[in-house]
Amino acid sequence: MSYCRFCEIINEHKNLLDEEVVFENNQFLVITDKYRKTSAGPICLIIPKEHHPNLLEIDKQLEISLVKIIKLISKVIQKAYDCKGIRIWTAVNKEAGQSIFHLHVHIVPCNSIMDRFIAAFPGVYDLFLKCLKFGRNQLNKNQNFELAEKIRTELKSNH
Amino acid sequence: MSYCRFCEIINEHKNLLDEEVVFENNQFLVITDKYRKTSAGPICLIIPKEHHPNLLEIDKQLEISLVKIIKLISKVIQKAYDCKGIRIWTAVNKEAGQSIFHLHVHIVPCNSIMDRFIAAFPGVYDLFLKCLKFGRNQLNKNQNFELAEKIRTELKSNH
Repeated sequence: MSYCRFCEIINEHKNLLDEEVVFENNQFLVITDKYRKTSAGPICLIIPKEHHPNLLEIDKQLEISLVKIIKLISKVIQKAYDCKGIRIWTAVNKEAGQSIFHLHVHIVPCNSIMDRFIAAFPGVYDLFLKCLKFGRNQLNKNQNFELAEKIRTELKSNH
Repeated sequence: MSYCRFCEIINEHKNLLDEEVVFENNQFLVITDKYRKTSAGPICLIIPKEHHPNLLEIDKQLEISLVKIIKLISKVIQKAYDCKGIRIWTAVNKEAGQSIFHLHVHIVPCNSIMDRFIAAFPGVYDLFLKCLKFGRNQLNKNQNFELAEKIRTELKSNH
């Protein structure tokens, strides 16, 4: 199999850099996305540990557990950030904007149309900020740790 | 319960207007979205027949079958329109862009960044076309019937 960044993170917690693990069980790893924060809170990526290129390639076992984990993480983000709006999405293949070819589902807290724009077009938003000389939407390690810690705390109180 | 446009469509096939039903079983109705077509093909909406306001409110039975139907419809659209890219998304609450408060999952064929824009911001795209006096991205009944028929044909050959 060719190189897969998410497999590397899952197997060795390698290349995590500034992302933070907020949840882990035998089937899934959930991390914050260091490039993508909205005004409402951090974006989380739900990543199955088994390598499947995209949602259309998963097996029955994963079909059953995927929606369950999506619901859990979304509700926890809603509570941790007092945020009603959540956009949930995944891309299949590069034509739809997929950049890492290991299934991941984006959980995006939304309070505004700009949040939805960041959710759908993080790259375009980065370019926009760069043109206006605002720097990138990238978080530093401390900021991201704080965001992730809030979610972890909420998750613990949920169990 | 207050008025729900999707419940009305499901129960009475009323107010379907220019949408087309492409698939129906005891749990789901799948229709084309008359307002949202990309350069790759028609956008489909997967709607559970039971009324649940959004993905976070569904029960275990639906959790199990939802990913299965998402996979089926996505693969059929890929084949019917020879289109690799599919973006799959759902919104929870109006802050995330939900406008009909009955769970529906968008299956969006994508070949370009403009397709992803139409997927994420159909209302903004409509406004954009209107400003440029190009009219709306709305399909007429015949166009939509043709698109839906292609998907129905593909679905039949899949079973």
